[in-house]
Amino acid sequence: MDKNYDLVIIGGGPAGMSAGIYAVRQDIKTMLITKDFGGQIAKKAVRIENYLGLNKITGIDLINKFKNHLKSFPIEFEYGSVKKIEKKGDIFLISIGKKKLISKSVIITSGADPRPLEVPGEKKYIGKGVSYCTVCDGPLYKDKVIAIIGGGNSGLESALFMSKFAKKIYILEYGEKLGADRVTKDKVFKEKNIEIICSAEIKKIKGDKFVNSIIWKDRKNNREKTAEVDGIFVEVGHQPATSFVKNLVDFSKRDEIKINHNTCQTKTPGLFAAGDVTDVKYKQIIIAAGEGAKASLSVSKYLSNRNN
Amino acid sequence: MDKNYDLVIIGGGPAGMSAGIYAVRQDIKTMLITKDFGGQIAKKAVRIENYLGLNKITGIDLINKFKNHLKSFPIEFEYGSVKKIEKKGDIFLISIGKKKLISKSVIITSGADPRPLEVPGEKKYIGKGVSYCTVCDGPLYKDKVIAIIGGGNSGLESALFMSKFAKKIYILEYGEKLGADRVTKDKVFKEKNIEIICSAEIKKIKGDKFVNSIIWKDRKNNREKTAEVDGIFVEVGHQPATSFVKNLVDFSKRDEIKINHNTCQTKTPGLFAAGDVTDVKYKQIIIAAGEGAKASLSVSKYLSNRNN
Repeated sequence: MDKNYDLVIIGGGPAGMSAGIYAVRQDIKTMLITKDFGGQIAKKAVRIENYLGLNKITGIDLINKFKNHLKSFPIEFEYGSVKKIEKKGDIFLISIGKKKLISKSVIITSGADPRPLEVPGEKKYIGKGVSYCTVCDGPLYKDKVIAIIGGGNSGLESALFMSKFAKKIYILEYGEKLGADRVTKDKVFKEKNIEIICSAEIKKIKGDKFVNSIIWKDRKNNREKTAEVDGIFVEVGHQPATSFVKNLVDFSKRDEIKINHNTCQTKTPGLFAAGDVTDVKYKQIIIAAGEGAKASLSVSKYLSNRNN
Repeated sequence: MDKNYDLVIIGGGPAGMSAGIYAVRQDIKTMLITKDFGGQIAKKAVRIENYLGLNKITGIDLINKFKNHLKSFPIEFEYGSVKKIEKKGDIFLISIGKKKLISKSVIITSGADPRPLEVPGEKKYIGKGVSYCTVCDGPLYKDKVIAIIGGGNSGLESALFMSKFAKKIYILEYGEKLGADRVTKDKVFKEKNIEIICSAEIKKIKGDKFVNSIIWKDRKNNREKTAEVDGIFVEVGHQPATSFVKNLVDFSKRDEIKINHNTCQTKTPGLFAAGDVTDVKYKQIIIAAGEGAKASLSVSKYLSNRNN
């Protein structure tokens, strides 16, 4: 049977959970649909030190605090994957398997996943030397040897960030040359502890308890090469989770949903988005939580401006 | 003696504290100047229920958690009031009394205070029936009688928000008619539990342990009038704390500092602002904390793009 809501939130990461709290506190009849709670936080390699008020907390503990907070309010939620959102008149139809929800407004908070390398050893060492976030985990590699995979701007920015902490940094790039812009490249060239290796096709991550080496093929001569490293940072882009919403929103060059950054409004009235799935410049837990709150406050205004 | 920093943060509310954590974690040499820690949070009438991860926490406890988190990092801070910021070349001079700090970048997080009524009884009953934030404190007045002071958009929006919870709502407006826009007024007129009283000059707030009545002068006939109320919400505007920065930024109509909402950049390179002092649409703790993080990440990019 179809069900009617004022608001459906799609995604249970920090943006979605914060949006949920703000919505329910405003008496908005809300359904939250998610595959799981916590989003990327569960993948954190180290304790989280930058969420204001909750210092040195594990990802799992942080998720549990968020979840308990959300569930202390009378919010409806359901585990599931949204297949499609359509708009008919001023009503949204949200398909989850064969079921359809009907809602006056929607907030998309489905997040973005760092794109994995998909090489042997990668999954095994997540949290044990493999990381997808230098801002979060970088400071832990003080005086260590690390490899950054990806020679685009984000890879090089990560290398510059890490050059303050790490003893030695390899940048491994698949292409024949770095993809980053000139200014960033010039800065990297000045750092004595950064070594750039192009034409490198990553083959394998090895270790015992923790990562201890990375193996790649030199694409110029097909030789296999190895470097001993304590940590590997993967910077080969993100995949915002937006397959269900193609027609109702505009996308950035990085496939993020474009929003008004003061209101979280997408190009479709009644359809909002918040957190890592959007073109918000910085993907951070505390920022996503703030953006989720913004989105629900905007929904509240949107609903009170509707005629019904 | 003058001191040199990479970053000076002005203000110790949630935006400033979150900015401080993000700055220090990136090895940015940072000084935080503030009158006190916590900003408006200290004035919260009730437990805070909407800061994701820390449910039902008193303002004081929340401030202490924020402060302890910040101070767990090696950040320099100083109690003081900034008198002036100037820019000479690409360096900022920040005057605190007779002392001057020199910095490559600045984040203003000096907040905004709700404008008080300045009538007898107001200060005494803050936290005991007098509030400046319906979103925060409104749900606690379920089935109670309240007065909202101020007939502008924010006053009427508060009344609409409260009409779901409260038994009876008075809107008291100083002018001869409401200042709010037509759409909002039309909605208010439809609510049966809202009574509008114009030409009302608030004279006094009375109570015993908690607020129990409000007294005003009817400006049409100079008669004194009283209404029995359980709570009073003051909605007569905000005062962003920006006296020290007049020339380097643009202001909104509400005297808020205009920023790029994706980067927290003001019109002056190297000068950023975050939280309630800016034209961010919603003034909320979790949003301010997110904005502070954005500002410091932008500072990090700004500093690495400088030549020195």
